[in-house]
Amino acid sequence: MPGFPAIQIADVLDAARLLNGVAIRTPLIENRALNERVGGRVFIKFEGAQHTGSFKFRGAYNRLARMSAAERTAGVVAWSSGNHAQGVACAARMLDIPATIVMPADAPAIKIANTKALGAHIVPYDRIRESREEIATRLATQSGATLVPSFDDPHVMAGQGSVGLEILAQASEAGADVAQILVCCGGGGLLSGVATAVKATHPDIAIYSVEPDQFDDTARSLRSGVRERVTDDARSICDALLSPSPGALTFPINKALLAGGLAVSDAQVRHAMRFAFSTLKLVAEPGGAVALAALLAGEAPATDGDRAIVISGANVDPRLFADIIGETD
Amino acid sequence: MPGFPAIQIADVLDAARLLNGVAIRTPLIENRALNERVGGRVFIKFEGAQHTGSFKFRGAYNRLARMSAAERTAGVVAWSSGNHAQGVACAARMLDIPATIVMPADAPAIKIANTKALGAHIVPYDRIRESREEIATRLATQSGATLVPSFDDPHVMAGQGSVGLEILAQASEAGADVAQILVCCGGGGLLSGVATAVKATHPDIAIYSVEPDQFDDTARSLRSGVRERVTDDARSICDALLSPSPGALTFPINKALLAGGLAVSDAQVRHAMRFAFSTLKLVAEPGGAVALAALLAGEAPATDGDRAIVISGANVDPRLFADIIGETD
Repeated sequence: MPGFPAIQIADVLDAARLLNGVAIRTPLIENRALNERVGGRVFIKFEGAQHTGSFKFRGAYNRLARMSAAERTAGVVAWSSGNHAQGVACAARMLDIPATIVMPADAPAIKIANTKALGAHIVPYDRIRESREEIATRLATQSGATLVPSFDDPHVMAGQGSVGLEILAQASEAGADVAQILVCCGGGGLLSGVATAVKATHPDIAIYSVEPDQFDDTARSLRSGVRERVTDDARSICDALLSPSPGALTFPINKALLAGGLAVSDAQVRHAMRFAFSTLKLVAEPGGAVALAALLAGEAPATDGDRAIVISGANVDPRLFADIIGETD
Repeated sequence: MPGFPAIQIADVLDAARLLNGVAIRTPLIENRALNERVGGRVFIKFEGAQHTGSFKFRGAYNRLARMSAAERTAGVVAWSSGNHAQGVACAARMLDIPATIVMPADAPAIKIANTKALGAHIVPYDRIRESREEIATRLATQSGATLVPSFDDPHVMAGQGSVGLEILAQASEAGADVAQILVCCGGGGLLSGVATAVKATHPDIAIYSVEPDQFDDTARSLRSGVRERVTDDARSICDALLSPSPGALTFPINKALLAGGLAVSDAQVRHAMRFAFSTLKLVAEPGGAVALAALLAGEAPATDGDRAIVISGANVDPRLFADIIGETD
């Protein structure tokens, strides 16, 4: 286990160099109607446009590209509800590495189908009765494959941090003066990477985590100072953000660098997805829309500067999306 | 009536200067899955991210900003099925000019609602029994307001041409070598502007119009050399592209500069909208998706270089969008 911090800015810069020309430099988008509604400039980092429809490709590729030839031959194993699965599968295909993904049987169909289409071998499991960690660890042990964690891994965290570097560069190109950044939070990998990237050169930018209200383990942990856990009956529409507690590697970084933690309800998430559809013209999945949801719900703290938010993913089943855009506010 | 050509590259450059910092420099997006499907690099200019959700703001603002103080006081009148309406309403609000828009009573509800929300006065008409030109001309004559045509106007055409300049600049930034551009075509305003912008410095880039198959007036006109007209029974899901014939000002330019005209069916458009949702994670309205539809349907001519396509707008009613993404291919 690495010491604290698990990653530093040099690791993020390294990852960004590796990802240059491989990952998509996703757009940073400003929208007049959103600015008017919020009463200030907002810049949206749209990771729906990343390979496989979420930021997860960045960390996965940065991890897999560091493997030796012998490790590559033995393959990789990962567990994921869907976005990390697709990111690992895509990176593995690009690098010609066999990939096995342990996925919940009730993951969104689009995520399972896309992961299969990328050539990965899928091992389904029952989220209630089985342990994905145990299944994945057994598979990795049997085959000699490398386990690729979805957030608690320095290369994964550093890869996600490239999102933060791009926000800074693109905001500067747009003449923005970013003072606040809102980032979704499951296990805290994206957040720890972005915070490491941003705080190194912009210590005054305030960074907030945003979680589903029943999965507010990071917000509570930031307040208490220790890693809290959600209750077993916690539920959320945000299938990508169901981690029960902050990561062992991600939390110390987030605790040191974040300004605080926000939380949003499923109803606020659905409203944000409708807003993204009708006004931004972007597809956002539930977990990808929490930062926008916090902003639209007035949960983001006041700031004198501009804001940046991440729409982190857009892998949502058409039926759920149709239901949500058909609702009225 | 201006001579031929109605606009030249200097007019487009002028418009781009005026629009700089006012219009959104919309993203040019590359997608790995689309590249793989098409067998080459494709760059998508996403005008859904423009103010009011379509490129129409560009031309409208470039026209309205040229009005004198006296003209501005008297206001503007336009007719439009929706996107030009919103573009004019938004530009008018920014410039503090009263706007009256003649809209078909059966225009998409989202387009009527958005135009109203931008502060314009809406005059509905019956598309079958009434003439929008007559209504708008009468309103303009009565009030001394300026008529703002949706395509056959040099400032409108030059404003839309800024899309072409941005494609060239952003493709160059992305290291692309664009050899072919596909652009949707209603009256041909966007197309004539883009062609003027692109051909001035890149005469070897082949530009194609894309129309709904029953509204293929520009494709047929390009073949015959004279402005053809669609039959009265022509129908299409592409509400933004229902112009019955090419413009008097736009067609001579398109005739001189285009490589040819393509056409797509409603079914191909619906498939493209699904692809945009599920793979690009972008919202496209039917008329905005025709260039993508042509590409996905294999209708785009072969090329040795990279391709750019325009997704020109994303104002689609949630119910129709839900229906389309719920269909299977």
